[in-house]
Amino acid sequence: MTTALKSIKQNARTIREKILKGQKPSMRLPVRALNNVRYKPSHGFFEITGKKKERTLTVGTVKTFAQTLRMMALSKDLIENDDIASKREAYYISKNWRDAGFKEQPESDTVIDDIEAMLGVNREQIGFIPEEKGGEVAGRLIVIDSDRDTGKPIKIDCTRFGSGAYSIPIAVEHLKFESKAKFVLAIETAGMFQRLVKHNYWKRTNCILISMGGVPTRACRRFIRRLSDSLNIPVYAFVDGDPYGICNIYRTLKVGSGNAAHLNKFFCVPQARFLGVTPQDILDYKLPTHELKAVDIKRAEDALKNDPFIRHYKAWQEALNQMLSLGQRVEQQAFAKHGLNYVIDTYLPEKLSDPKKFLP
Amino acid sequence: MTTALKSIKQNARTIREKILKGQKPSMRLPVRALNNVRYKPSHGFFEITGKKKERTLTVGTVKTFAQTLRMMALSKDLIENDDIASKREAYYISKNWRDAGFKEQPESDTVIDDIEAMLGVNREQIGFIPEEKGGEVAGRLIVIDSDRDTGKPIKIDCTRFGSGAYSIPIAVEHLKFESKAKFVLAIETAGMFQRLVKHNYWKRTNCILISMGGVPTRACRRFIRRLSDSLNIPVYAFVDGDPYGICNIYRTLKVGSGNAAHLNKFFCVPQARFLGVTPQDILDYKLPTHELKAVDIKRAEDALKNDPFIRHYKAWQEALNQMLSLGQRVEQQAFAKHGLNYVIDTYLPEKLSDPKKFLP
Repeated sequence: MTTALKSIKQNARTIREKILKGQKPSMRLPVRALNNVRYKPSHGFFEITGKKKERTLTVGTVKTFAQTLRMMALSKDLIENDDIASKREAYYISKNWRDAGFKEQPESDTVIDDIEAMLGVNREQIGFIPEEKGGEVAGRLIVIDSDRDTGKPIKIDCTRFGSGAYSIPIAVEHLKFESKAKFVLAIETAGMFQRLVKHNYWKRTNCILISMGGVPTRACRRFIRRLSDSLNIPVYAFVDGDPYGICNIYRTLKVGSGNAAHLNKFFCVPQARFLGVTPQDILDYKLPTHELKAVDIKRAEDALKNDPFIRHYKAWQEALNQMLSLGQRVEQQAFAKHGLNYVIDTYLPEKLSDPKKFLP
Repeated sequence: MTTALKSIKQNARTIREKILKGQKPSMRLPVRALNNVRYKPSHGFFEITGKKKERTLTVGTVKTFAQTLRMMALSKDLIENDDIASKREAYYISKNWRDAGFKEQPESDTVIDDIEAMLGVNREQIGFIPEEKGGEVAGRLIVIDSDRDTGKPIKIDCTRFGSGAYSIPIAVEHLKFESKAKFVLAIETAGMFQRLVKHNYWKRTNCILISMGGVPTRACRRFIRRLSDSLNIPVYAFVDGDPYGICNIYRTLKVGSGNAAHLNKFFCVPQARFLGVTPQDILDYKLPTHELKAVDIKRAEDALKNDPFIRHYKAWQEALNQMLSLGQRVEQQAFAKHGLNYVIDTYLPEKLSDPKKFLP
């Protein structure tokens, strides 16, 4: 039996026993908010701290209480039947719960988040999957999945996709990996990924290429995390050199996000490091740039002031301040000025010759 | 030599000869606009009609003229070296063209579109790829790609991905297919796709599942089109029952879009038919719905009034009018009300028992 299943049953049993004794049942849930978060670099992600809220069964809470129990029951069914439900589907299922039905999806999402935090697991482990997927893989990696009908293992060889790629499923907990790759290169744009795939870049450098397609989805982050943990190899991020690439895409990949702090333990990639594009690269490689917009400047200034991750690393403060004083941002595609494959033949080899210089 | 390459050389030669004779060189380009478009159901897509504009070399046009020639030269290089450039990269390359450099990407995009229309090919055939990708595949299909380094064919078996999928590359012209599937099911949401993949739905019905992830990208549409053409099997669309699903996602998949009419020949899937969710399904399956928003109503009314595709089919006018009079829209996930796998066990089998009833 999975830990999640045990935990659901244990929680349900406690509540049942209280009711049978004529006592008021209650649940204890971690407070999910930025003021209940800390960043410890030795742990490597935004962590939820001790604050808890108690939900006791009263006239005022009866509906939420019932909804939470029904959602736990649904989760139990999902785990036992090896099935999945998207958050949207979970909302629609409740339409059959009569008085306990949800009016709007944000209500059911909140209850799922509460259960996730209460059980200390991630949503995918209790059968709920996000609506969106994302993340493609090519290179020196064999993914081991299994056939639902036969239970037999399926080996997926990511060197055998030609110009295509392996699309990461929405839930990745069950996957296993085999690889002798030396690192994972996590790439922001589909266009740059396609260039590196087209030229079999993974062969040259013995690596695994992953396209994040902007801010990586939960499944994509979890996939990279499990990959890096199980193969014990580093992850290098290659994103646009702008405040969004650094403070949103890279920061979320590495330490998680503030408003989902109860999950970051699972969805962060603390071993990630920032290959580029850095503000210094603009100067070193004479790259064409764009002026920072007001929204870029605001994002960088906010991060310097409020983001516990940026505030922890002097190197990041210096890099963001350099970007602000240059007043310029730069894109991954900018290397094309020097020839389409300059990025493959010159930039990446030069950078990869000394990963110790990567930003933290 | 590819047709595109021949055509580039032929065009360049004509211009060169005119210059050598001391005459003013010119190019003839189709007018790309909605008022130069028609819909013939026998052809199956929005077609560009005869109007052409002539771009003659004068003091006023010298920059655009030079840019068009340089872009044609870049395209020639790309084809000859079997390389690709995203539209963004093409823009950055021009930063080395001195006076002929583009100031903003929309300028270079327009020139690429002009060349595409002039040569009567699609952008991918002349080496330019879109920035975004999209589209995942699972089921009874073998995709045949080739290894860039060895030239050897690579067979990609889409039944062997477990819970994952094959991610469609940005350019798909070179792919070949092997399959004994009976149809392609093109699905709007990643969540529904994941459900059907998780339950090996393609095994039960001998089909190919494709996730479009909203309005399908060019690569995704072209992939479905080539698949359906080469295997000679029908394509069934399974999208949300709302004006966006019908008038944007499905309409674009089937006949293309108005503002890219010079391309629809390549990027439409005339053999597509609409499985659901139809407004009638709301009643037949007692589905939970949402009220139409103002934007939904406007979209449906616009389509009834202006969209040549909708205006051609009485069945679509009736369906949209039924939706407007119900005042309701419905999502793919709504079947979950009757149980998570109702869609697999009941809805899809009932629908697929009579594809002749599908909307056109």
